[in-house]
Amino acid sequence: MSSNSKKVLVIGGVAGGGAVATKLRRLDETAEIIMFEKGEYVAFANCGLPYHVGETIPNRDSLLVVQPSLLRQRFNIDVRLSSEVLSIDKDAKTVTVVDTSNGERREYTETYDKLVVAVGGKSIVPPMELHGIEIAPHATDGVYTLQTLPDMDKIKQIADNTDAKSVVVIGAGFIGLEIAEEVHRRNKKVTIIELADQVFAPLDKEMSTPLLNELQNSGIDVKLGTSITKIVKNTDATLTLTTTNGETLTTDMVVLAIGVVPNTDLAKNAGLKLGETGGIAVDDQMRTSDKNILAVGDAIEVHHIVSNTKVRLPLAGNAAKQGRIAANTIFGRESKFGGAIGTSVCKVLDYTAAVVGINEKTATRAGINYKTVYAHPASHASYYPGSESITMKLLYNPDNGRILGMQAVGKHGVDKRIDVIAVAIKAGMSVFDLEDMELAYAPPYGSTRDANNMLGLIASDEMRGDVVHCSYDDIATPTEGQVIIDTRTPSEYDDGHIPNSINIPVDELRGKLGDLDKNTEYLLYCRVGLRGYIAGRILMNNGFKCKNFSGGYLRYILHK
Amino acid sequence: MSSNSKKVLVIGGVAGGGAVATKLRRLDETAEIIMFEKGEYVAFANCGLPYHVGETIPNRDSLLVVQPSLLRQRFNIDVRLSSEVLSIDKDAKTVTVVDTSNGERREYTETYDKLVVAVGGKSIVPPMELHGIEIAPHATDGVYTLQTLPDMDKIKQIADNTDAKSVVVIGAGFIGLEIAEEVHRRNKKVTIIELADQVFAPLDKEMSTPLLNELQNSGIDVKLGTSITKIVKNTDATLTLTTTNGETLTTDMVVLAIGVVPNTDLAKNAGLKLGETGGIAVDDQMRTSDKNILAVGDAIEVHHIVSNTKVRLPLAGNAAKQGRIAANTIFGRESKFGGAIGTSVCKVLDYTAAVVGINEKTATRAGINYKTVYAHPASHASYYPGSESITMKLLYNPDNGRILGMQAVGKHGVDKRIDVIAVAIKAGMSVFDLEDMELAYAPPYGSTRDANNMLGLIASDEMRGDVVHCSYDDIATPTEGQVIIDTRTPSEYDDGHIPNSINIPVDELRGKLGDLDKNTEYLLYCRVGLRGYIAGRILMNNGFKCKNFSGGYLRYILHK
Repeated sequence: MSSNSKKVLVIGGVAGGGAVATKLRRLDETAEIIMFEKGEYVAFANCGLPYHVGETIPNRDSLLVVQPSLLRQRFNIDVRLSSEVLSIDKDAKTVTVVDTSNGERREYTETYDKLVVAVGGKSIVPPMELHGIEIAPHATDGVYTLQTLPDMDKIKQIADNTDAKSVVVIGAGFIGLEIAEEVHRRNKKVTIIELADQVFAPLDKEMSTPLLNELQNSGIDVKLGTSITKIVKNTDATLTLTTTNGETLTTDMVVLAIGVVPNTDLAKNAGLKLGETGGIAVDDQMRTSDKNILAVGDAIEVHHIVSNTKVRLPLAGNAAKQGRIAANTIFGRESKFGGAIGTSVCKVLDYTAAVVGINEKTATRAGINYKTVYAHPASHASYYPGSESITMKLLYNPDNGRILGMQAVGKHGVDKRIDVIAVAIKAGMSVFDLEDMELAYAPPYGSTRDANNMLGLIASDEMRGDVVHCSYDDIATPTEGQVIIDTRTPSEYDDGHIPNSINIPVDELRGKLGDLDKNTEYLLYCRVGLRGYIAGRILMNNGFKCKNFSGGYLRYILHK
Repeated sequence: MSSNSKKVLVIGGVAGGGAVATKLRRLDETAEIIMFEKGEYVAFANCGLPYHVGETIPNRDSLLVVQPSLLRQRFNIDVRLSSEVLSIDKDAKTVTVVDTSNGERREYTETYDKLVVAVGGKSIVPPMELHGIEIAPHATDGVYTLQTLPDMDKIKQIADNTDAKSVVVIGAGFIGLEIAEEVHRRNKKVTIIELADQVFAPLDKEMSTPLLNELQNSGIDVKLGTSITKIVKNTDATLTLTTTNGETLTTDMVVLAIGVVPNTDLAKNAGLKLGETGGIAVDDQMRTSDKNILAVGDAIEVHHIVSNTKVRLPLAGNAAKQGRIAANTIFGRESKFGGAIGTSVCKVLDYTAAVVGINEKTATRAGINYKTVYAHPASHASYYPGSESITMKLLYNPDNGRILGMQAVGKHGVDKRIDVIAVAIKAGMSVFDLEDMELAYAPPYGSTRDANNMLGLIASDEMRGDVVHCSYDDIATPTEGQVIIDTRTPSEYDDGHIPNSINIPVDELRGKLGDLDKNTEYLLYCRVGLRGYIAGRILMNNGFKCKNFSGGYLRYILHK
């Protein structure tokens, strides 16, 4: 090590820490790089953990993406496993480490020039009365969280056990839904307990309806608006849970998948500034309030580009980017984390749910002016086999048409549509850009007007005043002076319609204009929104007042 | 019809014509809209035609997306089938029409305020000596083109006939590859004859190698650099073809799928200006050289945003957009066709090939400064089942990093990656934007660093000077003073390597720096490019000269 070379310590060896350490070495051959990982594994595929439980990923070793030996040989990184950093002395520029790799506890200090905190998050454990169970510091005794390979091994052991018949998953977010699916694959009776009134909170409630249906149709029991007040371990090792409704459930395993909060004890005790959301505060070059300490990954808070607020977004892709940027900063290279837009995706049985930007809940909370449009376009040309409709919702700014967010749920092509919107949001594009977007089309892949073009067209038509959309509340509870027209065929109408609607098929509308009244406001709908829109054009061009319910009847039943 | 209302004629009833006519009506209830279609069908799914031949789409009726009755009832359009427009008198503002719908020929003239030419393209018929066969005006007698439902019916009749054993497809573009796959599904011996030295011209030649392999592995015979000089119809109704090599082939059917040229006879005879490419010249509001005549779809030429040239791009999505814009222009609404980027996709057996922007052939021809990077990233996390590598090539401008084009070939996730780049190109984004793009990640859908992030990272590293890439010619024919290092493991090296390369595994490189020479330029490669890059960082940071071969050995074998 030359006298000019830096000594950099990296605390944490998963997504963010691995990215920092390897990028540091690619930038400089002489730096001394030490990685402390409190667990026994580095750079494992933490997003893959749920999928080994149900043996979707049959081979456990495939999750060990990078071995410590590779970090040592290829990147000349001093990897120290079973080594927990207990404290940081930022004035002395030292850390205190406890090494338990030899079965005994050895404490020592290590100096640094630069320090990177990549300690991730920790699973939330809700307040519950516990009998015969200890959860802290690690969930155990049949009640588990899923963050590490050993966590996974314990959960899988019960999943493998054919005597274990039932599993309760607490939390219906990413990990909760993934683990529920995987234990369901192992023929357990699965119950999901969720405090909110919906599954998968990144979606607005109505958009989560297809997922709830899919879970229930598969035989998974979902209890919404519910939490657990007490867990008792029985003598036969089963667990009895009491819910907020006073109901009791007996099960073989509980998986706590409520979410994670940033691991900030180390940073807080060192006197580093925390942000408003509770994550470590960093600038766009990943520097904390101390000039020699940087932080990346799930432990920090980031700027959300669309909501213009600080948020915690525990996403692996961002952790890797932040790692690269932190390494650049350490070596004086200019690079910036441009903020996050929250692009994410989750598989739920045969469905995919994905989101980007902000949803209606976030927009309302942040006081952001928005409008929504809904559509149910085909994943690809409906005449080509395998086409499935995607339930989509777009948020945009009605002042300038700027795209604010999108949510999509369906069986095919969901991830593609979200990625397209992710780029459009990052580029500051509007719904006008979206309607004209030139996307790849052949019948197996899309439509002449792609699903995303459709969202753009619908929103652009509203921006131009060619259509005015009504809300769910409007159509569910019309006021005096409003009349709901179902523009579908009589047989569609007879199969189910919105209460108090009258049926005038769009193809008969011109002949019935004489029966309509120019003082009435007509609320139009069809199955997905297109015929309602065409009927609206006929009415508006003939001087009638009307609004269309975008998303149509298929949307209406999502709200119910 | 009120005295202020317009009379608009639309010539052509498929993609562009259908879009014009329906948008016209949505904008105005009083206009008289007449659609002339020389065939018997309007608004059929022309991109779906190949897929009914092999019964991938089993139901013929599903291709009849919009019935004339719907255009009449829902949109109040006067649809006239079997009605060919013979001529346009732009001074008199009339067209002459021949109506053969009643089995007899009735000629008449129709006046207009505005006229939209949406007559599409016509299949190219190469010069060939023909014996016993007539091709003009419609391919017949066992030699067919595929543009209409009756064309499809004739081709399918032979595909259905179990006595027909072999089919020759001339042309390996979109339609040629689609129809080859479909007749292959019907257990015919298929031969593709292609004049170029590669299949699927939108790709650069090396990028088409996986498709060629896929076709050949499935048993389809592909003759490149070949065309047909003579077709003779035999007494048993088979056809004997003679190729430019003097070879003869006997077959039951020939499908001409060389491509289309714009149908410009009508426009040319009317004195409308044609563009440099031979398509009808229009402005960005779809107006031809005559102020009352507009044109859309495959008959026109468009501005290509990336190459900044006029091009002909027969793509259905653009035709629909142009139709909408033409209708806006007619009613005095401001809207513009912002140019094309050529986003397109094609299914080839188990593979998908997709392109956007410009390729190396186009860039070279247009004198555009570019660099390329190659990668073979996984379609999704490699530890999750079903992951397949995608062969990708990115072109970018080395002056500013701007993305110029992308090509991708693989089994999964290809269309998604192309659509992301399509938005990025439209937004004027650079490779720096691409490396940081926040794309949806979960193991079934992508990777922490998505395939597109990888392309962005590799190109950005070159922009920053962290890597210099060598070309295929460099590594295939190194000069004196250059040494090729294979940075893979000995067993990978033993399984096949680039001639004259020496093997130094990346993980042993630091220990062997003493054996290397600072005056030599090392050309590095690995399997896909990543280990070669890391080896390059080790060498550069130790003061050695080196270049990396992006795409690695997997790319090398594409070029061979």
